[in-house]
Order: sequence, then C-alpha cells, then structure tokens
Amino acid sequence: MTYCIGILVDDGLVMMADTRTNAGIDHISVFRKLHVFQKPGKMVLMVAASGNLSVTQSVLSFVTEGLKNPDTGKVETLLTQPTVFKAAQLLGRALREVYRIDGHNLEQMAGGFEANLLVGGQIGDNPMRLFHIYAAGNFIEVTPETPFFQIGEHKYGKPILDRIIRYNTDPRDALKTAMISMDATMRSNLSVGPPVDAAVLRKNALECEVLCRIEEDDSYFIELRKAWAQAMQDSHNAMPLPPYGSVP
Amino acid sequence: MTYCIGILVDDGLVMMADTRTNAGIDHISVFRKLHVFQKPGKMVLMVAASGNLSVTQSVLSFVTEGLKNPDTGKVETLLTQPTVFKAAQLLGRALREVYRIDGHNLEQMAGGFEANLLVGGQIGDNPMRLFHIYAAGNFIEVTPETPFFQIGEHKYGKPILDRIIRYNTDPRDALKTAMISMDATMRSNLSVGPPVDAAVLRKNALECEVLCRIEEDDSYFIELRKAWAQAMQDSHNAMPLPPYGSVP
Repeated sequence: MTYCIGILVDDGLVMMADTRTNAGIDHISVFRKLHVFQKPGKMVLMVAASGNLSVTQSVLSFVTEGLKNPDTGKVETLLTQPTVFKAAQLLGRALREVYRIDGHNLEQMAGGFEANLLVGGQIGDNPMRLFHIYAAGNFIEVTPETPFFQIGEHKYGKPILDRIIRYNTDPRDALKTAMISMDATMRSNLSVGPPVDAAVLRKNALECEVLCRIEEDDSYFIELRKAWAQAMQDSHNAMPLPPYGSVP
Repeated sequence: MTYCIGILVDDGLVMMADTRTNAGIDHISVFRKLHVFQKPGKMVLMVAASGNLSVTQSVLSFVTEGLKNPDTGKVETLLTQPTVFKAAQLLGRALREVYRIDGHNLEQMAGGFEANLLVGGQIGDNPMRLFHIYAAGNFIEVTPETPFFQIGEHKYGKPILDRIIRYNTDPRDALKTAMISMDATMRSNLSVGPPVDAAVLRKNALECEVLCRIEEDDSYFIELRKAWAQAMQDSHNAMPLPPYGSVP
C-alpha cells in the first residue's frame, strides 16, 4: 500500500507520501511517490500517487515526456501547464491513456486498474489548488470546509487530520500534523513505511519552503514520534474514568 | 458498518459495540450488536457481532435456542457451555449452520457471506478468554502481546488502542480507551453511530462490573469527547515545529 496526504490551507500547501511499495509481503521496495515539478519563481506542482505502480509511473512518464492534447493537437507536459486545473486535466488524460493501453490486461490479470493521484500547487498569479484524481481520470478539489485529501491506506491517519486541520492552520503546523498522521499509519500498518517525502509550498512563494526526504533515523521525526506517544499516554491518563455500573 | 472492540487484560475483559446498522445510506437503524449471557456467580459470556445482520442474528438465535452437537447428539446453548473455548466452538458451528442454510443464496444475491464474532468471558474457575471467530467458523485467541481484537470498521480506532492497551492495563482504563477509539471511529465514519453498548467483567467476579448502553447525550461521553479533542489540540500545539528546509 501507500499513504499520501495533501493539505491545502489558506497560506499554503503540504504534501507528504511514504515510499514503501510491496508486491507481496516478501517483495518490498522503496519508490518515490511524491514528485515535485518546480520552476522557481514561476510554478510549483506536486503530484502524489497511490495504486498500481506501473500505472502511476506510466502516468508520470507521459506528463514528463509529453502527451498530445486531442483538442489542440499540441504535446503537453506538466511544466507547460498554465493552471493547476489544467495540470489535473492533463494527469486525468494521462491516466485514461494508460488505461487505454494497459487497462484491459490489468483487469484480466492483476485484479483491476487502480490509481489515485493528488496534484496541487501554484502557477504564476493563479490561486493555489489541490485536486484528487481518480482512476477514471475525473477529479475533485479541496474546499475550505474540507482542506485535505488522503489516498492509499488513509483510515488510520484520518482522525488526527479531522481533529486538527482547519483552513486557517499554518502550513508548517499542517506539516507537523501530517507527520503525526503518517506515524499513526506506519505504527498500525506494515505496508506503509519510511522514508517519507515531504513538501511545503507557501502561498505566492512559487518555490518550495520544504522539500525533503525524512529518513527513519531523522532526529526530529524520532523525537516527534516519541513525544506524541507520551502525549497520548498522558492525555489518556488525564481523562476521568468511566462512571458506569451494571444496569442489566 | 459496525465497530466492535474486545480487550482482554490481566485483570478483566472489556467489550464494546456501536448499534448502527445500515442497508444503504437511507436505511439506518439501531440494532444491538453486543450480547451478554450471564448467570451471576457462575458465568459471563459476551458476544459482539459484525457483518451481515441476518447472519449474526441467526447465529445468536441458534446459540440461544440450541444447536445439536454432531459429536454428542446433545442440543447445546451458550449458557450450557463449560468453557469459553467450547462457547467459541459452538458459535463457529452456528456460523457454519447458517452458512449451510443461507450461504449459497447470500453469495449469489448479497455479495457474500460476511460475519465476524468476538466472544469473551469466564465460566466458573476456568480462565477468562477472548476469541475472534471468522465467517468460516474458525477462530483465534488474544494473547498478552496482542490483548485486543476489533471487528467491523476497525482502522480509525486502532492507533489509540495500539498506543495505550497493554496486558497490565486496568479494565476500567481499557474501557476509557475503547470509548476514545469508538469516538475516533464515529467522527471519521458515518456508518458507526451511537448509542454504544459496553460491558466490563473483572477476573473471577463472574458478574459484569459494567453493563450499560451509552446514549449520545450521556454526560460522561460528551465530556470525554470534548476533553479528548482539546487534549489532542493541546498535545499537537506542544509538539515542536518541523525544522526542514528545501534540499532539492
């Protein structure tokens, strides 16, 4: 599995993804699932991917090498998109192209055509946006009421995001929340694992404020995991005990 | 969906289940999923059920009305079992009997034969035990290293159990943890809802210390949910911010 988070708050965008890929429990590898396309001062696009790795890697190859737009006849890449909406459309078209090529065989032999993408960023003066693209190539956008998307193994890490992330959360605070959410997922599910790729883009900066790979032995991450576990234990201890008796 | 928790610690057993049943998003009802079979001073058995309601209700009917044991020819009920292991076997046989009767049609028309049961308790001088019974009628038992089972919509509420529950946790503390786990699940998933049934059985007490239905307007539960949300927020605020920069 995979776990990717995209958070779009008022002041910026946070994306995070683990790197564990498994084709069976005895075939585990590290693959990048968070991809950043950046022309500093001009545009930043981040793409996170879950699902069948052959599908998502092919999609990334199409949007990097170029895919012909059937309406204009022009070959397009992610770096030539004028808006994030157009980038989401390009990724959707790339997904449909991969489905056209591989979909039938995957459905016959690999149990289905599975892929989810997140794409977020800012291009020029246009607003920051964040989209979740489904395997069918259609997509939805975050709104201030629901400022985050998760793809992959999302359930373990959802409660902390539900509790903390609001539209006015600071991006660096949101990065902290994402790391706690990733920690919860990694503790409860072996198929999500380190290292973790993270990126933060502040509004109108047009260059990543954070762009890094957080290794398992990263001292901040180790401390955060330890301190959070202790805080959970302390919070739990501080709650009063249930007063219930037996009312048959 | 459903969410049920069973926790067996050194000093006792905690079981909890929500009561929401939905056959489609516009067909939501309240059904009991935690059933307690008690002869005070002699035995307490608790059964929690998730999956297809027609299957689990039929299983409960069989073990209440009686099911013939093919080895002995005797009709058995849960209340006549000498050990929790034997009770788990009886529930497994009841599941197989329901599968024999309804399995084929369910697989043809309802997408499958789905059921999971937890059964725990103590009978006489025998040790407390807790089992997870699968749809096939086979089962596994908790151990001190893994002192809890969850069935149904289990992922949202697993991280807090992973963090807090140990074999030496006090049963009433474990009840508190179960309520926090249930809260996390209800916040993140609409298909799990109040009221919540809870039971606590202390070792060698042979009578429930807690046996109650916790309604949505229960003052302790309201306070716990509010206090826990605040504690999460405070804990989050207390964590240092991530120090990362941009290392392309």
